[in-house]
Amino acid sequence: MSASSEGVAPRGGIMSAETAEQPEVLRRILTEGAPRIRAVAAEIAARSPRFVLLTARGTSDNAALYAKYLVEVLLGKPAGLTSMSTTTAYGAEPDLTDCLVITVSQSGGSPDLVASTEAARKAGAITLAVTNNADSPLAAVSEFHIDVLAGPEKALPATKTYTAELLSLYLLVEGLRGGDGAAASELPELAAGILARRAEVAEIAQRYRFAQRLVITSRGYGYPTAREAALKIMETSYIPAHPFSGADLLHGPLAMIDNVSPVIAVVPDGRAGEALQPVLERLRGRGADLMVVGQADQVERASAGFALPAGVPEEVQPILEILPLQLLAYEITMARGLDPDAPRALAKVTETH
Amino acid sequence: MSASSEGVAPRGGIMSAETAEQPEVLRRILTEGAPRIRAVAAEIAARSPRFVLLTARGTSDNAALYAKYLVEVLLGKPAGLTSMSTTTAYGAEPDLTDCLVITVSQSGGSPDLVASTEAARKAGAITLAVTNNADSPLAAVSEFHIDVLAGPEKALPATKTYTAELLSLYLLVEGLRGGDGAAASELPELAAGILARRAEVAEIAQRYRFAQRLVITSRGYGYPTAREAALKIMETSYIPAHPFSGADLLHGPLAMIDNVSPVIAVVPDGRAGEALQPVLERLRGRGADLMVVGQADQVERASAGFALPAGVPEEVQPILEILPLQLLAYEITMARGLDPDAPRALAKVTETH
Repeated sequence: MSASSEGVAPRGGIMSAETAEQPEVLRRILTEGAPRIRAVAAEIAARSPRFVLLTARGTSDNAALYAKYLVEVLLGKPAGLTSMSTTTAYGAEPDLTDCLVITVSQSGGSPDLVASTEAARKAGAITLAVTNNADSPLAAVSEFHIDVLAGPEKALPATKTYTAELLSLYLLVEGLRGGDGAAASELPELAAGILARRAEVAEIAQRYRFAQRLVITSRGYGYPTAREAALKIMETSYIPAHPFSGADLLHGPLAMIDNVSPVIAVVPDGRAGEALQPVLERLRGRGADLMVVGQADQVERASAGFALPAGVPEEVQPILEILPLQLLAYEITMARGLDPDAPRALAKVTETH
Repeated sequence: MSASSEGVAPRGGIMSAETAEQPEVLRRILTEGAPRIRAVAAEIAARSPRFVLLTARGTSDNAALYAKYLVEVLLGKPAGLTSMSTTTAYGAEPDLTDCLVITVSQSGGSPDLVASTEAARKAGAITLAVTNNADSPLAAVSEFHIDVLAGPEKALPATKTYTAELLSLYLLVEGLRGGDGAAASELPELAAGILARRAEVAEIAQRYRFAQRLVITSRGYGYPTAREAALKIMETSYIPAHPFSGADLLHGPLAMIDNVSPVIAVVPDGRAGEALQPVLERLRGRGADLMVVGQADQVERASAGFALPAGVPEEVQPILEILPLQLLAYEITMARGLDPDAPRALAKVTETH
């Protein structure tokens, strides 16, 4: 019997299947998940938190950064990302009255996240866990819990749990401000349309097969996408991929960009895209090889690109933007003869303390 | 007449001179600057801010991250780093009552920092500018101002203004909590001792002369040092240098580390150093080439290293840790035949919007 007839997935088969599940997961969150998220949001809103702190690591930290933008822009409340070691290494005990602490984790199992959330609750915070595991230690120690309903994720690189976290966090913030989350309704269908264009991405991946390094840039709502794309590429293909907000890129790192340094720019359709224009000009001026994911007219001006559908509200574009970049990480990795399902040196539940 | 007899600095001469000024700048802050910082801190403490937000870009953003650790650990208040585009691109108007917004900038001239600070003040925040230019637009729009007293900085890579910002922010947080800042008193002398060991660093720099990339890691108070070292190396030598907190490194990027990927670890003497041990074990297990800056016994176990003086309180170690790494950036750049004073593509005042 061959391996495949025993049900063993071919190289990359698990990541590929989980990536393809995303439209279905998004649909599940919008139907089954949304009422529960709205209920949690209403209970939290009634407690009138003044500040929001977000705690996470890895892929979930990029989802947390997206939520930070939502909280600041849509909800109009100050927000920060937790430096976890202040609690776990230094035993800091800040007064967290009036603070909402949101901990985001696929597994809900990392000991430092659990310890940090327990400390936050003791310090007076409203605690909310956003995880893919309702039975996790993190869900247990948090006052509130949102299940992102992505189903078991078996590939080491997180894909469907990332977009599930993004959508759940978007619906949460909408709930907190009394919005209806309508901007998300078309996402499952749009996601399916993007994932059907795998052949376009496979073609682009050939450009990066021998790349020594990549720079990925964006701004605003697109910046978490740049960070997550970089992480995905690093952990699967092992190509060092360095994410920068466009503004930070101009404060120093621009010096290292030249005509052999490929740059991927995530150009949202909206204000972040406009704010990114001077950065794109400077990159073109430095002779950078530029691939654009996003706005169609910017794709046309670049060396390569993947155009995203127009007319999607900017605050939910990140849920679509990452899809071609997940496919890109996969395709580059396959082209290099590696297995994206099981990168060397990694475990699915990372036990950091 | 030769160029040098006309007073034109030789290649790297400006950065080299400014790096060497640091003990003197630190001394100036402790004597002339401290009383003014204490007075500002007392006025702010009387207003009882509950939440601290830090706004900055580039090198100053790394100083802001250091301040975030100080605020959380020493002051026991929640803190966050501002995502500036939420104001400048999206027009977010969060309620900032009870918030202290600290904007850190060498020049005090970047338009986005000025706009963001003006918006914060309008939104009810207590605003404090920490700059090297008392006559700057940023100082003008802020309610409070601290001058970091570093004197004019002419090299493009910031060196003395970074450590001046760190020490000023340390004294500010000490003032806010009613501490005496005594941990800083030995820093000028210790800094002079470290900077006198340039020959050691020049020797180490030979290892990286042909490096294609670097990973720099640390945790806790040492993490801002890792970020600033990476920025310094990128903007002078053009070697892509990727900073990771030790915990984040285990969540994915560890896969790209192998025995041809040099890693620099900043190992503080204290709790962050302890928390970093499992990360160092994993790196050694992956066969990484490891250089250590910090704890002497960890330096001995590494492929190369630079031992820092023992017995310095952990919260002020970052003011010393960066010094050998500034020298390293300079020495690598000189060895590669480039000019650290004037990296390609950069301007001293970065006009991001």
